[in-house]
Amino acid sequence: MDAQLKAFFDQVNKDQEIYIERLREVVAIPSVSSDVALRPQVFRMGEWLQKELKRLNIEYELRDPGTHVMDGVTLQLPPVILGAYGRDPAKKTILVYGHYDVQPALKEDGWATEPFELVENAKGELLGRGSTDDKGPILGWLNGIEAHQKLGLEFPVNLCICFEGMEENGSEGLDDIIVAEAKGWFKDVDAVCISDNYWLGETKPCLTYGLRGISYYKVAVKGPGRDLHSGVFGGTVHEPMTDLTHILSKLVSPHGQILIPGIMDDVAPLTDAEKASYPSLDFCLDTLHCAIDAKNTLHDNHIDALMGRWRYPSLSLHGIEGAFSAPGAKTVIPAKVIGKFSIRSVPNMVPEKIDACVNKYINDEFAKLCSKNQMEIECLHAGKPWVASFEHPNYVAAASAVERVFGVKPDMTREGGSIPVTLTFQDALNKNVLLLPMGRSSDGAHSINEKLDRSNYIEGTKLLGAYLWELSTHTF
Amino acid sequence: MDAQLKAFFDQVNKDQEIYIERLREVVAIPSVSSDVALRPQVFRMGEWLQKELKRLNIEYELRDPGTHVMDGVTLQLPPVILGAYGRDPAKKTILVYGHYDVQPALKEDGWATEPFELVENAKGELLGRGSTDDKGPILGWLNGIEAHQKLGLEFPVNLCICFEGMEENGSEGLDDIIVAEAKGWFKDVDAVCISDNYWLGETKPCLTYGLRGISYYKVAVKGPGRDLHSGVFGGTVHEPMTDLTHILSKLVSPHGQILIPGIMDDVAPLTDAEKASYPSLDFCLDTLHCAIDAKNTLHDNHIDALMGRWRYPSLSLHGIEGAFSAPGAKTVIPAKVIGKFSIRSVPNMVPEKIDACVNKYINDEFAKLCSKNQMEIECLHAGKPWVASFEHPNYVAAASAVERVFGVKPDMTREGGSIPVTLTFQDALNKNVLLLPMGRSSDGAHSINEKLDRSNYIEGTKLLGAYLWELSTHTF
Repeated sequence: MDAQLKAFFDQVNKDQEIYIERLREVVAIPSVSSDVALRPQVFRMGEWLQKELKRLNIEYELRDPGTHVMDGVTLQLPPVILGAYGRDPAKKTILVYGHYDVQPALKEDGWATEPFELVENAKGELLGRGSTDDKGPILGWLNGIEAHQKLGLEFPVNLCICFEGMEENGSEGLDDIIVAEAKGWFKDVDAVCISDNYWLGETKPCLTYGLRGISYYKVAVKGPGRDLHSGVFGGTVHEPMTDLTHILSKLVSPHGQILIPGIMDDVAPLTDAEKASYPSLDFCLDTLHCAIDAKNTLHDNHIDALMGRWRYPSLSLHGIEGAFSAPGAKTVIPAKVIGKFSIRSVPNMVPEKIDACVNKYINDEFAKLCSKNQMEIECLHAGKPWVASFEHPNYVAAASAVERVFGVKPDMTREGGSIPVTLTFQDALNKNVLLLPMGRSSDGAHSINEKLDRSNYIEGTKLLGAYLWELSTHTF
Repeated sequence: MDAQLKAFFDQVNKDQEIYIERLREVVAIPSVSSDVALRPQVFRMGEWLQKELKRLNIEYELRDPGTHVMDGVTLQLPPVILGAYGRDPAKKTILVYGHYDVQPALKEDGWATEPFELVENAKGELLGRGSTDDKGPILGWLNGIEAHQKLGLEFPVNLCICFEGMEENGSEGLDDIIVAEAKGWFKDVDAVCISDNYWLGETKPCLTYGLRGISYYKVAVKGPGRDLHSGVFGGTVHEPMTDLTHILSKLVSPHGQILIPGIMDDVAPLTDAEKASYPSLDFCLDTLHCAIDAKNTLHDNHIDALMGRWRYPSLSLHGIEGAFSAPGAKTVIPAKVIGKFSIRSVPNMVPEKIDACVNKYINDEFAKLCSKNQMEIECLHAGKPWVASFEHPNYVAAASAVERVFGVKPDMTREGGSIPVTLTFQDALNKNVLLLPMGRSSDGAHSINEKLDRSNYIEGTKLLGAYLWELSTHTF
């Protein structure tokens, strides 16, 4: 394997300008899935990929997620592209996922360069919308196949592909397709790899083994039949804003403790293995202070801060709908106000139990107010947390690949947010899922000046290939 | 006086169609002071009034309030029109105030008729923007002068006039002019009458002797340097929304009690005279339920409800700027949130003391949170409460006039809101001020389908004239 990998790495080094030109080509397609006017560009990007799969002799089929309504327009959803490179029963079958749509981007938002023109700057950063999220990683898989073909090298695994074009807009229709294909296109899959997140810091690759879930709530308090003037009616009615503010203030302490009884009961205890994984992480409080552009952190050390981010639940108050929210002064008593908050959940919390705790507590607290207003709680969406064992061969292989390419042991990380497709794959296929990022923490995936460092793109292409080679040596 | 008044009333009855045509003429001028495009119409309305004053031989001068900036445009402010009808040192001089600008109105807002075309419906309601606020009352004064002239009847007082064109847009520049004219145009004024509010109910006229003040606050809590993703940063930072919600929840109880220590200390005790004025008021809880289109009132009887509206302070939470306020779900940790609340104040509360209590309390409560965020309190504007003695001859005369025209004793009312010019006249001239409304509670001054009942317009014209006759018989 060492010789083959050396040849592969050399080929990747040799072809890197080709890879960058290829990235330039796809960044130039503004495949923004949340923009009605740009929806045809998402299809164009899907066609580009199909042409590329054909060129690389990768068998593929399309799945049609149907239509949806956006901004009042009924739109066709871009196809989910299912690929299969090799169907050798003697080899492992690895499913890789990526998305070919991107976030919106306008030069006027503050971009230093044209967002849909790839520009390499003096620091070796490849600037452009989609460079790191998620066109670079998608090309990483395909570049690897091309390199093997050029070398006449047998591919180490069967590669099963799932590329979608709606990730930045709710992955509409994808879950149903994954479930439907679990015993179809995906039936031989042994493990799953998703390259769609980021390193914890700037210098050290990571393997990501956990995600928090989310339960998003709205609490509506309704009083008068219409907005009232506070001069005329202040002091005569039960004001919905007063009730809502009292309820919201009972949910979480200023130090981040969730005050809802029962919520913390199911939090998995910290294991020694997990605890041991923190001290070596490429992270410090300065990184966090820099990311939030302030020093108002809850913790005084980076380990507690990371645990707060990804292994303990949190509750955030997002805002209030229906109240006065513009600048200036308005003397209104809003008639109906809707508080929005969400709980980030961790193993072994389950949405149903969270829901029961939230409903009981808020109903109890509202009853204590003895208000004549009406209150309603609604869960807008709920997703489970996810955690994988990083002792699984899927992770062990990825860790070996990192050591081969970068000469360091990877950080073992979780994410504080959610990547819903992870859970869908896990639940539908019941196979180990690995998140193996290509880009760095500073890539600005959803911001202006999104970039992928040239070294991350090229070494990342090597990493994805090496991971497949390492995997082929494990039995599981 | 009885004979003169009878002749006057008969003339008013005879000329009522002329008065309505005159109201039609002025309603057709869309003098919306808050609309850049309609500002010239405010001037046109001012010119209409000047022509009318000339026709009635009323001496007048204009005062120029200067310019202001609105929606980025520098605009000339419409003139304050100062009039003088009679300067007989043997008569009393009464200052009357009105405004010739109106609220915005569009048919599309839900008007049943064209807002700037006066329409009389089957119920005898004169529908049209400005009919009751405040063009009807302004014409009421002028119609009365015309009737006296037709009859060859000597006018009972010297009438001093102050008509402005910016009332619906902050009365910009007016205060300075009033202060400057206190020893000028207004130097002989004995009492002031403002006809720019409404009856408490539908059937009984009222005299209004009190207004609440207002102290409007914003409390800003600032944390991270930019909005954060709650997945990535929830559980790691002091969230400004959490702090702000805790502070806002400490200001007022769900039953309307202000929780800020010291605020209630200066509330004037209820006198027997005031207490005795409540039972006969044209008001019941149903009226309030109907006005708020709900039954979530704080009190179970109309007397406590009216005291809550106008003789006790109240605190309303208006909303939050900077947080997520749109429909749907957004997983944001807002970086800076600004809570808005205001306190309606009553005699003998003073803005400076309110300010001291609010600042001390909120600073103390914020300190208890031990948050690393920054908090700032700012008073956006403050106006004093106002109360006049309804035993003053100005009120006694008005009450007699009500009995003459309507055959009932008027309600003695206060308003929960503020009419800032009242205080300006009171403070600048140091004379008794009376609020003597023409329209009914249901007139919808700032709403769609604004109206003035024909009977209110015609009987109201008689009332304003009779009030001046009654005043002439009092010494003060």
